[in-house]
Amino acid sequence: MSDLRNTQDPRRAYELDRAHVFHSWSAQAALDPMVITKAEGPYIWDGQGQRLLDFTSQLVYTNLGHQHPRIVAAIQEQAATLCTVAPAYANGARSEAAHLIAAHTPGDLNHVFFTNGGADANEHAIRMARLHTGRPKVLSTYRSYHGGTQLAVNVTGDPRRWPNDNGSTGTVHFFGPFLYRSAFNSSTPEEESQRALSHLEQVITLEGPSTIAAIILEAIPGTAGIMVPPPGYLTGVRELCDRFGIMFIADEVMSGFGRAGKWFAVSDEVVPDLLTFAKGVNSGYVPLGGVALSDAIYATFAERAYPGGLTYSGHALACAAAVATIRTMEDEDTVANAQRLGSAVIGPALQELASKHEWIGEVRGTGCFWALELVSDRETRSPLAPYGGSSPQMAALLKACRSEGLLPFANYNRIHIVPPLNTPDDVVREGLAMLDRALTATNS
Amino acid sequence: MSDLRNTQDPRRAYELDRAHVFHSWSAQAALDPMVITKAEGPYIWDGQGQRLLDFTSQLVYTNLGHQHPRIVAAIQEQAATLCTVAPAYANGARSEAAHLIAAHTPGDLNHVFFTNGGADANEHAIRMARLHTGRPKVLSTYRSYHGGTQLAVNVTGDPRRWPNDNGSTGTVHFFGPFLYRSAFNSSTPEEESQRALSHLEQVITLEGPSTIAAIILEAIPGTAGIMVPPPGYLTGVRELCDRFGIMFIADEVMSGFGRAGKWFAVSDEVVPDLLTFAKGVNSGYVPLGGVALSDAIYATFAERAYPGGLTYSGHALACAAAVATIRTMEDEDTVANAQRLGSAVIGPALQELASKHEWIGEVRGTGCFWALELVSDRETRSPLAPYGGSSPQMAALLKACRSEGLLPFANYNRIHIVPPLNTPDDVVREGLAMLDRALTATNS
Repeated sequence: MSDLRNTQDPRRAYELDRAHVFHSWSAQAALDPMVITKAEGPYIWDGQGQRLLDFTSQLVYTNLGHQHPRIVAAIQEQAATLCTVAPAYANGARSEAAHLIAAHTPGDLNHVFFTNGGADANEHAIRMARLHTGRPKVLSTYRSYHGGTQLAVNVTGDPRRWPNDNGSTGTVHFFGPFLYRSAFNSSTPEEESQRALSHLEQVITLEGPSTIAAIILEAIPGTAGIMVPPPGYLTGVRELCDRFGIMFIADEVMSGFGRAGKWFAVSDEVVPDLLTFAKGVNSGYVPLGGVALSDAIYATFAERAYPGGLTYSGHALACAAAVATIRTMEDEDTVANAQRLGSAVIGPALQELASKHEWIGEVRGTGCFWALELVSDRETRSPLAPYGGSSPQMAALLKACRSEGLLPFANYNRIHIVPPLNTPDDVVREGLAMLDRALTATNS
Repeated sequence: MSDLRNTQDPRRAYELDRAHVFHSWSAQAALDPMVITKAEGPYIWDGQGQRLLDFTSQLVYTNLGHQHPRIVAAIQEQAATLCTVAPAYANGARSEAAHLIAAHTPGDLNHVFFTNGGADANEHAIRMARLHTGRPKVLSTYRSYHGGTQLAVNVTGDPRRWPNDNGSTGTVHFFGPFLYRSAFNSSTPEEESQRALSHLEQVITLEGPSTIAAIILEAIPGTAGIMVPPPGYLTGVRELCDRFGIMFIADEVMSGFGRAGKWFAVSDEVVPDLLTFAKGVNSGYVPLGGVALSDAIYATFAERAYPGGLTYSGHALACAAAVATIRTMEDEDTVANAQRLGSAVIGPALQELASKHEWIGEVRGTGCFWALELVSDRETRSPLAPYGGSSPQMAALLKACRSEGLLPFANYNRIHIVPPLNTPDDVVREGLAMLDRALTATNS
């Protein structure tokens, strides 16, 4: 008899959840979690058997959708062979995953340190930068998210930092480019790019270049709003880093592995010194994250021990899932498909929605990585929910989406359209039509 | 054709490892990692096909050995059904795992917050304690390990903290009981217990009770030396915590899930406020860790959002492996077997080794959790390798073990005997005979 015999009963799953599971980022008493009993491709089924179109990719990680047969097969095959080996050994699944990842990372990011997820990837990247440079500080942007552990959440620039902000030594926040709500009174993307770089240079100068180990940036800020950097910005950051001996850490946890229509969102413009990933690396089928290191940083730890590690670094089962995911993405041309979906399907459809619905203040994105900035007034750009909060309008819109059978990703006053990268065109269009009807029903 | 087609070639695994894998806690250039191609129960096979008896349980986590068929079957079944769901939903595998864990945790530790491993479990437990008490400091012992992320490594009390010690606000170290190298000049376990508690009380008094959120302790310090607390010590810590309103965090990442011959090493003596786990919860077959919370701490976050989380919290595949592991441990009476192995097989055999080999200064442990404290001189108790370092003698002993076909866990001047909890008696005896011969060969 299967050890999982009881796990398919949605009522039992719900009751035991309420009795024993403590959920992330939530007040626990009022939670009423949807039971997911089944999932396939871009769809999930709730406890009542209703099918929902998952435009969230869960938390923007099931890049190949649910239950892709090749990833499932690789997990089952690796499980039958060798589930786990400790980090000190070498193992085929881990070696192959590192090889495949390094083949897609830009420049000389040739070595991979595996972690369990994005938070510890960023923690280790920051540590590597500090030890490599001998400098204490790390700069990050407001409107960013870098993870939930103490150091990662202290470099984070969204409201999730606030209750955890005990003033971690050497974390300094600056403003990134965001033309729609410019911190620099810019009126064009070029101006925003130039002014944001000038601001960053001033922060570096005034904090003291010799005190700054790293600048950590989401290549495209994700949960904070999918603000695609304006032309020249990332190149400019790279130049500032070079000029001042600062390490550029590109956080590609959400933007990487095809999400933005490129293997990595930075890669056409710049080569960072450290690049962190998780989520899309294996579509989240097994927990996995990591840091890709430049040859120069690798050399720092060639003769000197890197003082960091973790029990499950390079976990065989997680790496096997990564191998299957990356090979599948290569074979199915997933990245190009994500790019095409963005430019030919999602982008135009969202612009059409914007022409119909007053709430849509801005449409922005690329690939399968899109945000609708919702406002109560297009002139004042007053957000439909306050920063860090919710509103009756947003709650009503989400409820209407759910009634239509659509799960969109929501954050404060924004709806993000972040479906699996291999969602069929007609299913994407169907989902956008659901969103259209939900907007119509709500914004009456 | 399988996506894992290349991963069974040990030569390719080795070459790609050296080209692309960055390993934990190491200088990278000199590494010469053993390729593990196969594993079963307490055995692993290296790249040359040599079978080795794994007395390390990898990193003290394969508590049911390698490739236990019930855990493998559960992973394969869950993979076929539903690999992953985001933390906000409810899912049968996660609910069942939380239910089974809560059934074995002591007292009112009824809710489980799942993480990816032990480090983030400890980070979140400390955060919960700080938010619950409103106090900033956390006390931990020297000779401890609590994980490799920034906060976790800063409460750690072993040399891995040193290169990462940037003075994290509010981490304070004190001395735990360790009679063989007593910080209190004690001569009996009772005296050590009483003096260590008196020391802790002084530290609390002088740091200021109203500033201390938590005391975090490995229930039995693991990598630092498997120092089983003397009678009354944990009870005394619990009493001090109660008296001063301090949260007791029991780190059971290594000592939990049967390792010490009990489900949890604290559980006969005290009920902590928070208990962290990883490793043995699913024998490490899929990355998983977590925090079990008391009802009082749960209540703190009933109406107020807990400001922490992670993408893979309660990962379905990892939780399915935990369900199979815990049910197997119940059915096979694994915990009682670990207890019996310790008292009837390992303990007596190690005492016999101590009577033959001058290097063995002390034998200590319980269950399948044993340490040999190796010394160059029994009178002075001078360690066979310095604290934080290695020595030719230790290297020779490890090499001799490897030649015998045995992999022991080594740390500085210590050998730890930490086999899977279900290793057959005759295999345990065979391994201890290998160790005997290796000691004889080395200590000539």
